[in-house]
Amino acid sequence: MSGLNGVTGFVLAVSVAFLGGPPGALGGNILIFPLDGSHWVNMNLLIEGLHARGHQVTVVRSASSWYIKESSPHYRSISITVPGGMDIEKQDFFASFLLKMLEIQREGASPLAFVSFYSYMLSALSGMHQQASQFVVEMFENKALMQSLRDSQYDVVLLDPGLPVGVLVAHKLGLPTVFNVRWITSGEGHFVVAPSPMSYVPTAGYATSDKMTFGQRVGNVFIYLLNMIIDMFVISPHYDRLVKNYFEPGTNFYHLLQGTDLWLMRVDFVFEFPRPTMPNIVYIGGFQCKPSKPLPTELEEFVQSSGEHGVILMSLGTLVKGLPVEITSEIAAAFAQLPQKVIWRHMGKQPIGLGNNTLLVNWMPQNDLLGHPKVKAFVAHGGTNGLYEAMYHGVPLVGLPLLFDQFENVLRLEVRGAAKVLEVTKISSQSFLEAVQEVLHNPSYRTSMERLSSLHRDKPMHPLDTALFWIEFVMRHKGAAHLRTESYKMPWYSYHSLDVIGFLLAVLFVLVAITVGSIYFLCLRLCRKRKPKQE
Amino acid sequence: MSGLNGVTGFVLAVSVAFLGGPPGALGGNILIFPLDGSHWVNMNLLIEGLHARGHQVTVVRSASSWYIKESSPHYRSISITVPGGMDIEKQDFFASFLLKMLEIQREGASPLAFVSFYSYMLSALSGMHQQASQFVVEMFENKALMQSLRDSQYDVVLLDPGLPVGVLVAHKLGLPTVFNVRWITSGEGHFVVAPSPMSYVPTAGYATSDKMTFGQRVGNVFIYLLNMIIDMFVISPHYDRLVKNYFEPGTNFYHLLQGTDLWLMRVDFVFEFPRPTMPNIVYIGGFQCKPSKPLPTELEEFVQSSGEHGVILMSLGTLVKGLPVEITSEIAAAFAQLPQKVIWRHMGKQPIGLGNNTLLVNWMPQNDLLGHPKVKAFVAHGGTNGLYEAMYHGVPLVGLPLLFDQFENVLRLEVRGAAKVLEVTKISSQSFLEAVQEVLHNPSYRTSMERLSSLHRDKPMHPLDTALFWIEFVMRHKGAAHLRTESYKMPWYSYHSLDVIGFLLAVLFVLVAITVGSIYFLCLRLCRKRKPKQE
Repeated sequence: MSGLNGVTGFVLAVSVAFLGGPPGALGGNILIFPLDGSHWVNMNLLIEGLHARGHQVTVVRSASSWYIKESSPHYRSISITVPGGMDIEKQDFFASFLLKMLEIQREGASPLAFVSFYSYMLSALSGMHQQASQFVVEMFENKALMQSLRDSQYDVVLLDPGLPVGVLVAHKLGLPTVFNVRWITSGEGHFVVAPSPMSYVPTAGYATSDKMTFGQRVGNVFIYLLNMIIDMFVISPHYDRLVKNYFEPGTNFYHLLQGTDLWLMRVDFVFEFPRPTMPNIVYIGGFQCKPSKPLPTELEEFVQSSGEHGVILMSLGTLVKGLPVEITSEIAAAFAQLPQKVIWRHMGKQPIGLGNNTLLVNWMPQNDLLGHPKVKAFVAHGGTNGLYEAMYHGVPLVGLPLLFDQFENVLRLEVRGAAKVLEVTKISSQSFLEAVQEVLHNPSYRTSMERLSSLHRDKPMHPLDTALFWIEFVMRHKGAAHLRTESYKMPWYSYHSLDVIGFLLAVLFVLVAITVGSIYFLCLRLCRKRKPKQE
Repeated sequence: MSGLNGVTGFVLAVSVAFLGGPPGALGGNILIFPLDGSHWVNMNLLIEGLHARGHQVTVVRSASSWYIKESSPHYRSISITVPGGMDIEKQDFFASFLLKMLEIQREGASPLAFVSFYSYMLSALSGMHQQASQFVVEMFENKALMQSLRDSQYDVVLLDPGLPVGVLVAHKLGLPTVFNVRWITSGEGHFVVAPSPMSYVPTAGYATSDKMTFGQRVGNVFIYLLNMIIDMFVISPHYDRLVKNYFEPGTNFYHLLQGTDLWLMRVDFVFEFPRPTMPNIVYIGGFQCKPSKPLPTELEEFVQSSGEHGVILMSLGTLVKGLPVEITSEIAAAFAQLPQKVIWRHMGKQPIGLGNNTLLVNWMPQNDLLGHPKVKAFVAHGGTNGLYEAMYHGVPLVGLPLLFDQFENVLRLEVRGAAKVLEVTKISSQSFLEAVQEVLHNPSYRTSMERLSSLHRDKPMHPLDTALFWIEFVMRHKGAAHLRTESYKMPWYSYHSLDVIGFLLAVLFVLVAITVGSIYFLCLRLCRKRKPKQE
């Protein structure tokens, strides 16, 4: 079997081959609606890939975006000004969100504090979607812009439906759509397009594995219903209003979402639990992963100085400006006791008690470090970009989830034995130290992560090439109608065959009634006939 | 967009690339359980591919098989003798089945004839599965054979689960399994592994599209229930008995089937209607398709002699020895009136009134003919091998379905405008002539088939290479547990969350009862307090 062990990485050669020739100036015309923040990192990778294949890319951005630059060698942009700006593009929006959340967690769930946080969260959510719908209104009301978009004759609209601006604009322009997606307005993307049995598919916001106890299944259904209610009363009304004003009567916002041609899902089943899917969902999880490059000299020297002990990386992602200093000081104290070297991507106030072994940096070449043989563990918040990179390079994880899907993400590695997860508000220097030491010294963490890595890398084609292939597929065929069901257009009782079951039960009832009735009358007549004889 | 039109065929180069090197003598060890008849054609293609990649292949066959040869340059074989042989390998079994079926169709559905045919069919079905379970018993009782299979240390068992012999043997040997599958014992394979909403997923044996009227949905559920009942009382008992005798207590035959690592599904969504699927289903529909080769000189001359009118092909597949001469003579008479040349693969009694333009042959290079530019239409029974080849080459179809899934298959091309379907017992030379002329002269048939062809060919990788990649994937990783849910092990009421819904309703009921009760008692007390005052 040793001949089968030759797979150590994706086959990168395919990307040029599948179009039968090198990309040229004859490429297509693509309109892109990205999401700000870390999602942009992902979308930008696709943009670079599409640009390299000779396509002309136009990005629609908010004029005040701090992440999506107005000009780039890879795309031209259209900037939309939303009065008051977009919350999602404000860096302190998530920082203040995080601080409020940590406060709640630290104080324990006092009902009043919980209700206050929850209502703050819902109003923030509503605000974000209000701004997104305003973004669409600004576009629709700009007749010159809409005409120029029509004149540009785009082949496809590629969008991140976390905020569904692009869905509405694409439908207005009558263009096929491709989603670069994990999250939609109401939660995880699969839930509106594929059957999702609540008995083994964890819902968004509920950190559980696919093997649930009865109590967890109750929790799963409960959170699912809660998500539905939030969507119904907090999110959808913004888009329903818009659809009512700008589209034909009878148009349903959800049907626009469900009617997309192709879902490029940022999911890999090495990471996600197995669940039902659909023919128009293409999995591109880990499409950001690539081999590491050599480190800058200074950093390489620091890494090498760790000797046999190796290096620990720590990063809490792009959105968070820094944890409270009480927490970071506990972490720093723990790091100071380790023989390893530590590279900590840190912003904000410097922690107290920082050890000589710990290097604070504003930015680090994360992928290149994760691929370095000296790196032994990764302390991470659990954003998917970092997790897929860690998985790709086989580096085990200490998870410090802070926000959103991060809790579910690190759980997925934890149940596979590849991560140790801590509650950030409950860590002391001692508990943090023990967790890091466990991941460093118990070989099962690395073995598990390396197993995930070998499964993840073993694909006929790199997921980025897969993504590019399918975007171009939709462009070549002007959609992908044959891959997508329109069953979502049925009323829910028909979709679930409740009307048919009712009808069949009614027929059964009538048949039984007729049979019983006939027997009854037959008996009655026989009895009558017999009675005179007896008399 | 012209740069995007370069895709005219699969990328065949990938197959060598994905293992990072050419196949060598270090390949794996593969045990194969094929199905006899046309299914063998498919399996043999995989065997040739696996052999070419340096794997050692062992085929388990019935000693009396007429199709699966004992010796081959591509595999070694193990022959099992089943007392009385296997019906499925007897050529006249299907011929007599067909004649009985045609009789029924021609006479109209007289209830007595229908019941008699149905009971004949059920007894034939039961017999087939009885023989298959006997096949397994013969293997299990042969201790020397079982020991030698254990000693051979196979990496994977590849099997066609139409008869699930291999499922049981693989489980006994504790080996990972890969299915080469469209049909399982109880119907279409998807139905036991993926959610299949009856509102838009046509069940096996019911020729309807995915857009059904209420009546069709009732029919769909009804046929589904009928299939379930047949499976429960006619098919499964054979295997349940076997599992009870040879496996640990509590082993469930269906769980063995559902627990397979990977389903290589002989389906492409250009052909099949979109429906839910699972991460461990890999689609390889059309894996038998390949570019056509030049024809033998004599045949090429005949084809060229058709001039501008072109050629019509006709074949009713490998299982059927020939239609009754009354029917074939109607067809021959119709062909005789056409200016086209006809190549008719025909076995059995020669039809009356054969035209000079019609060439009867025992065998024809079907794929090479379908790829010939002179071939204008294909008259076919609707076996999937032929349909995929026609689709691959873009040749429109006149469908003459005879048996089994052929009715559903041709319907799938009919609803896409690529085929005209006839009822074989109702054709006259006139109706047949009109159908052929319509397909020849109405360009929409060819346009539709060419559209399907371009969609079908537009894949990042040839489906045969996909199949080989995933078989080797299972070998490399000793299974594919991360792609497969074990939710089938839950009780049905838990799988469908009925227990959770019941619990939540009970909680709701208690809450409402407490609230109403409290209000009632409150009112009662208030009323009592008031009354004395009033008095």
